[in-house]
Amino acid sequence: MEVALESNAFILGIEYMAIFCCGMVGGLSAVRKDYDLFAIVITAWLTALGGGIIRDVMLDVPPVGITDKGFVLTALASGIAVAVIHPEVDKLKWPMLTIDALAVALFAVNGTAKAMGLGSSGMTAAFMGMFTALGGGLVRDMLINEVPMVIRDKHWYAVPSAVGCLLTVFVCKALNAGWINLEWEMALELVIVAVVVVMRLLSVKFNLTVPGAVERRHVYL
Amino acid sequence: MEVALESNAFILGIEYMAIFCCGMVGGLSAVRKDYDLFAIVITAWLTALGGGIIRDVMLDVPPVGITDKGFVLTALASGIAVAVIHPEVDKLKWPMLTIDALAVALFAVNGTAKAMGLGSSGMTAAFMGMFTALGGGLVRDMLINEVPMVIRDKHWYAVPSAVGCLLTVFVCKALNAGWINLEWEMALELVIVAVVVVMRLLSVKFNLTVPGAVERRHVYL
Amino acid sequence: MEVALESNAFILGIEYMAIFCCGMVGGLSAVRKDYDLFAIVITAWLTALGGGIIRDVMLDVPPVGITDKGFVLTALASGIAVAVIHPEVDKLKWPMLTIDALAVALFAVNGTAKAMGLGSSGMTAAFMGMFTALGGGLVRDMLINEVPMVIRDKHWYAVPSAVGCLLTVFVCKALNAGWINLEWEMALELVIVAVVVVMRLLSVKFNLTVPGAVERRHVYL
Repeated sequence: MEVALESNAFILGIEYMAIFCCGMVGGLSAVRKDYDLFAIVITAWLTALGGGIIRDVMLDVPPVGITDKGFVLTALASGIAVAVIHPEVDKLKWPMLTIDALAVALFAVNGTAKAMGLGSSGMTAAFMGMFTALGGGLVRDMLINEVPMVIRDKHWYAVPSAVGCLLTVFVCKALNAGWINLEWEMALELVIVAVVVVMRLLSVKFNLTVPGAVERRHVYL
Repeated sequence: MEVALESNAFILGIEYMAIFCCGMVGGLSAVRKDYDLFAIVITAWLTALGGGIIRDVMLDVPPVGITDKGFVLTALASGIAVAVIHPEVDKLKWPMLTIDALAVALFAVNGTAKAMGLGSSGMTAAFMGMFTALGGGLVRDMLINEVPMVIRDKHWYAVPSAVGCLLTVFVCKALNAGWINLEWEMALELVIVAVVVVMRLLSVKFNLTVPGAVERRHVYL
Repeated sequence: MEVALESNAFILGIEYMAIFCCGMVGGLSAVRKDYDLFAIVITAWLTALGGGIIRDVMLDVPPVGITDKGFVLTALASGIAVAVIHPEVDKLKWPMLTIDALAVALFAVNGTAKAMGLGSSGMTAAFMGMFTALGGGLVRDMLINEVPMVIRDKHWYAVPSAVGCLLTVFVCKALNAGWINLEWEMALELVIVAVVVVMRLLSVKFNLTVPGAVERRHVYL
């Protein structure tokens, strides 16, 4: 099975853009901590491609975040770019948030589809999608020694990815079962990406948060 | 070679319990930091199964912490459970400590036996057992951005696991050499689990600690 | 293709020394944080061999940092040694710095050459060399919960490794193309090691730092 989202020049273009933007987000957090240029570039690279590296190590295939020249150069370039244009980037809250959400959504769908294509079960593929989507941010926050954003951010950050991964599993299963064709798969995956992005943006806009542990006064013990 | 501790329904039951309890310990530390529900569940899952995932990635086999439905659902369930019953769990210091020690002991013995079964040398298998036993706690403490408990806790925490892993290596070697049969192996492994748990509990009870670096007044240089 | 730096008893001796010294540097940072003996030994081991473990997991070969008895025992011994002689080691700023730089340089060259020998592309091999050289320090700083030194240290720390990895790629390509023979490769790799060490020491001596992000007053947006 081909991974639909990777077999199309249009989608590939979006993916390069996602890597670039994801890298800029990562690089920006390094700029804010006054890191040097090399550290900014490394942080950008690992933020953009670290999730995919974790996924590929677990799937036991060569990590594209290291072996794919186009991806790596894009990620490194995003680090250099943000080291120069960080004052502008820093001001673009909503555009950056949108682009970051788009990157996370694309990574979630792509990561899940890649694992399904390699024969993983649905549950494994969903986890792989989550690792792809959230792993980069996790590595970034380890590098800057902060509590990972997936943990820190009380808005919907991991939840939309989880929804996207699960939906992608169903789409891939439908494709494998012959219920839909490749064109439909691609269309549905774009819909999923849109759903994930909209969920994320709505949660920030309207301050929707995931509830914490159940608070209880009385302890029955 | 079959991994004895996994071929038996009784042992499997204990293992599910260990995963559940380990997940509750991890989830509890997330509850204490006021994380949201999703973060609690993720922390519970990675605490319970992260060690095994690291081991399986190094052994180059599919990580059961992602692919085994029973294990994953148990770990996720433990996170949801602790989000509800955390006030009760928080009060159970000794039961939790015992159960955590039991989980670490089981993971150490099981991890070592799995590596031996895959043909690793004794030293490699012992390290794999240690990764299985201690890796989950390591990942948890990275997620909540604290110094890992294996480092922080001056009581015997890693030492009993190390003892358990080494003893398991000897038991597996004895089995392979034909000195003991499968029943004896299983019995001996249960004894090892008990030894590890007792060592851990005694060290907390009587405040036994591992000594630090050698303190010296005079420097001869 | 043989990895030249590993086929020679002289080089192997240097490598053991590098592991020992790297382990002492790692153990020392654990001693400074008042960790217990077990934590010191674990930190020493992962500082010395963690980078190679990451590289081998990504290259999909058994991690020598776990399977090679000589390497593992050397790393563990360095932890025990530094727990005793830390007051002396702590005073040796320049010798330690030199030895650490030597270890990083050797790991960079060796890691790159190993990846090239396994058929990786030049870019992948260079990244693998970087992981080998810098991964150990990264793992150490995660264990002691600090911002990684590769990020923190504004002197040239990662840059010399990057230069060393790239030069090693060219040397390996030249060997594969038949332009140079094995003796020349080994000689050139020793030169690269020297270049990396000298770059590092000069940067500390003369306080040369990598520039940070471009500072700009006016934002054109």
